[in-house]
Amino acid sequence: MSSGDPGTLRLAVTGAGGRMGREVIEAAADREGMSVVLAVNRSETEPVAGVAVDPASEFADRLAAVDPDVAVDFTGPASALAYADACADADVPLVTGTTGFSGDELAKLQEAASSVPVLKAANFSRGVAALRRAVREAVAALPGYDVEVTETHHNGKRDAPSGTANTILADVEDVREDLSPDGRVHGREGHAPREPGEIGVHARRAGDVTGEHEVLLADNHEVLELVHRAGDRGVFAAGALDAAGWLADREAGWYTFDDVIDGS
Amino acid sequence: MSSGDPGTLRLAVTGAGGRMGREVIEAAADREGMSVVLAVNRSETEPVAGVAVDPASEFADRLAAVDPDVAVDFTGPASALAYADACADADVPLVTGTTGFSGDELAKLQEAASSVPVLKAANFSRGVAALRRAVREAVAALPGYDVEVTETHHNGKRDAPSGTANTILADVEDVREDLSPDGRVHGREGHAPREPGEIGVHARRAGDVTGEHEVLLADNHEVLELVHRAGDRGVFAAGALDAAGWLADREAGWYTFDDVIDGS
Amino acid sequence: MSSGDPGTLRLAVTGAGGRMGREVIEAAADREGMSVVLAVNRSETEPVAGVAVDPASEFADRLAAVDPDVAVDFTGPASALAYADACADADVPLVTGTTGFSGDELAKLQEAASSVPVLKAANFSRGVAALRRAVREAVAALPGYDVEVTETHHNGKRDAPSGTANTILADVEDVREDLSPDGRVHGREGHAPREPGEIGVHARRAGDVTGEHEVLLADNHEVLELVHRAGDRGVFAAGALDAAGWLADREAGWYTFDDVIDGS
Amino acid sequence: MSSGDPGTLRLAVTGAGGRMGREVIEAAADREGMSVVLAVNRSETEPVAGVAVDPASEFADRLAAVDPDVAVDFTGPASALAYADACADADVPLVTGTTGFSGDELAKLQEAASSVPVLKAANFSRGVAALRRAVREAVAALPGYDVEVTETHHNGKRDAPSGTANTILADVEDVREDLSPDGRVHGREGHAPREPGEIGVHARRAGDVTGEHEVLLADNHEVLELVHRAGDRGVFAAGALDAAGWLADREAGWYTFDDVIDGS
Repeated sequence: MSSGDPGTLRLAVTGAGGRMGREVIEAAADREGMSVVLAVNRSETEPVAGVAVDPASEFADRLAAVDPDVAVDFTGPASALAYADACADADVPLVTGTTGFSGDELAKLQEAASSVPVLKAANFSRGVAALRRAVREAVAALPGYDVEVTETHHNGKRDAPSGTANTILADVEDVREDLSPDGRVHGREGHAPREPGEIGVHARRAGDVTGEHEVLLADNHEVLELVHRAGDRGVFAAGALDAAGWLADREAGWYTFDDVIDGS
Repeated sequence: MSSGDPGTLRLAVTGAGGRMGREVIEAAADREGMSVVLAVNRSETEPVAGVAVDPASEFADRLAAVDPDVAVDFTGPASALAYADACADADVPLVTGTTGFSGDELAKLQEAASSVPVLKAANFSRGVAALRRAVREAVAALPGYDVEVTETHHNGKRDAPSGTANTILADVEDVREDLSPDGRVHGREGHAPREPGEIGVHARRAGDVTGEHEVLLADNHEVLELVHRAGDRGVFAAGALDAAGWLADREAGWYTFDDVIDGS
Repeated sequence: MSSGDPGTLRLAVTGAGGRMGREVIEAAADREGMSVVLAVNRSETEPVAGVAVDPASEFADRLAAVDPDVAVDFTGPASALAYADACADADVPLVTGTTGFSGDELAKLQEAASSVPVLKAANFSRGVAALRRAVREAVAALPGYDVEVTETHHNGKRDAPSGTANTILADVEDVREDLSPDGRVHGREGHAPREPGEIGVHARRAGDVTGEHEVLLADNHEVLELVHRAGDRGVFAAGALDAAGWLADREAGWYTFDDVIDGS
Repeated sequence: MSSGDPGTLRLAVTGAGGRMGREVIEAAADREGMSVVLAVNRSETEPVAGVAVDPASEFADRLAAVDPDVAVDFTGPASALAYADACADADVPLVTGTTGFSGDELAKLQEAASSVPVLKAANFSRGVAALRRAVREAVAALPGYDVEVTETHHNGKRDAPSGTANTILADVEDVREDLSPDGRVHGREGHAPREPGEIGVHARRAGDVTGEHEVLLADNHEVLELVHRAGDRGVFAAGALDAAGWLADREAGWYTFDDVIDGS
């Protein structure tokens, strides 16, 4: 780390007025050994958890002046690219949870990774990553077992199944040669005997559940249930901070959240 | 009770070669204070758990000779009516789990109830009865909460959702005026925001799961999950024996499994 | 309601700088048909969710001036009594979640209930109330079934089992004559066969789980699991707002959270 | 395979009158491509699932005459050693689920493995093996998360926690350097804050639950639950048949159930 208390990780946070930016700043305030030394936002924003928020346009200058250990970005593709350029210039590692990059934009983001460490992830839940690994192990150990995936989210969620459920389904289909996306069955009603190659997918929508994913494996008089439950959005901020702490000491390069888990 | 050890309930079992008849005889063998003194079957059948099986045609005669405390019947409508007549003549209470009676057949069965106690039930699981009562209480206490019903059964089950799930859905819709069968949604895929009046119904089919039913209620940052899990078919035999023990001392009349639960 | 938009419930909130006070103000801001028109706190406090916070000493005067429909109080016994007096004078119904009253203090609080409606509750989770009712129903329907109670809370919780678990255990022991507090077993290790009259009690402590309570009933090849899971502290604020909405139209008297559930 | 329908695996079963021997014969009768061609028992025994049972003393002679593809043994150490000798002489692979061997006895059993393939396992549940693998993966991916292990068994089980729970605990402690058997806590009551290095262990005893094991991991606003549920003892017979099918084609040597899972 570049300066100050050697035990404190000094963070820059972009999108400080956004939902995830605020979560990150609040989570850092609660975590020992972390301190937010710079926060920026495109529009004018009140202080968050006692941290003043500067205009986004000042990011590059402030970065050079403050010299943080790592930057955390949850914004949009265009903003994220501008922040990545500034980080590359100022030699500051960048963690980004921004999604929706086009192919060209992604290529530009990866260019920054030739100068500084860049870690990009779509989901910073360590528990979801652990669930996915556990599911791959279990599915491999239980060939031929029936698989059913059930997810539960708040009643305002518009798409079904969730992106994470789709990722888990792809994992299962990757491990099991006899299963493929063609076998996914959404809902059973009336005459509905289970066919070989079938995976049941169930999207429950209820109340304000943050997110629950369950993989059920059954055969031979036994059942295996692997379940992840997110308590609130703080889980994603916590993962982003884990990633930031891990990335601060890396060499320039392109990293994923799986690297954090393997490296910790 | 009519004779023998005053502490032993003496049972007659029909359909002794059938799946449920065998379960009943085996469960009675394991239960203290119960003894199968007469078993009959339409076709020739090996002894079950050490109990000799007589031809069905001898039921009336044997009933008069053996004079059991109660008869337990899991057969078909025609057989069940013949057995009910014999029980009425011999003054033996009858527990029947036979299903599929026509209106006329049901009326004839009820005639027998003017001479002897007759208890008819479609589901002898005490736990399912308890689940239904718990669900009605909880739904009444949580107006406006989202409801999702998930059931899991073995992969050989052909209909979805299960009969018990339909019963539970009807219970929920009975308690909640804003919910009706029109709101039942089977599977969500693609753009699927939850609508007011919606109940999600999810039928999972996996391995050889005997039967699981779960009612999920959610709102206001909280979730209530009410789950029943049947270990094996023995649960239904156990309930039938509970019913037999309870019915042996009743007056002539028509009873349901709910009466057993309320009376115990 | 006294004035303004006839569809909007106008709330006063005490302890506005405390954890629960803030939760109540934020929850009211999110709920249609509710508006916080007065907030007070003993110490100086920044605005909460855009609502200015006045000194506690001004409560009585402000109450008379603003004339809210109902007051919600989560403070300490001494403060709560002062607020109750002011509510009685101003004819404003009072919902209080304050705990720790002495016998004398409680008597004074009840005096206020001769002038205005007062509702006092230790737990405003509607789901916990529903769980307790469901448990009583299920336990009554399943005589002789083994009961095990498992609760899970964050790793900072100091007492075990939780107060809610103790309340549920008392419910079970009230319904089941063969069970009593003497039968509670905390942890089994080594030679530990289950004895008649035993209730297993399991306190899990892990991560930052807000609170989960599960009652397991088992016998006869079947299992019933009744589970409540609190997503976050917002559940209690939501219940307090439910209580406020319900209490605003009542006559003077002493009410509990069960009255809200029965009356809704 | 040595003879007969090339698609049918021909089994010998020892301890045919014992609980597990019977389960194995019944499971083989239900499984396509398997046939029990020889069954023996120390004491005189009725046919099992239509298979005649010979005296144990005739095992060696019958083995040579019938030449099965593989033998499956659930007996006691002395019997198992005698059966292993006969298998080595007749060149028949042996699967044994017998437990309780002394060091000397185990050495003798391993001698047989120099002539024929011998597979010994204490638990033939494929699902428990999968759970253990999933748990190791998840625990490794979630450093610092709190771990609680809960198991549920029938009320007649005398020891707590279960052997499988102890195996899982050892797995967790193996992966996590900061955890050890010293940290195991059985039951929490009264003042019981969670200490670093603690693992909660909860043994629930209820009804006739065959066996359930759950590992809970929590931190950072999220929870991972990994659960295995055994439907009935048939799960162990099914695993033994999987092992038999896999072992029939191996070279002489010593094998474990993990080899079956990795090889399938």
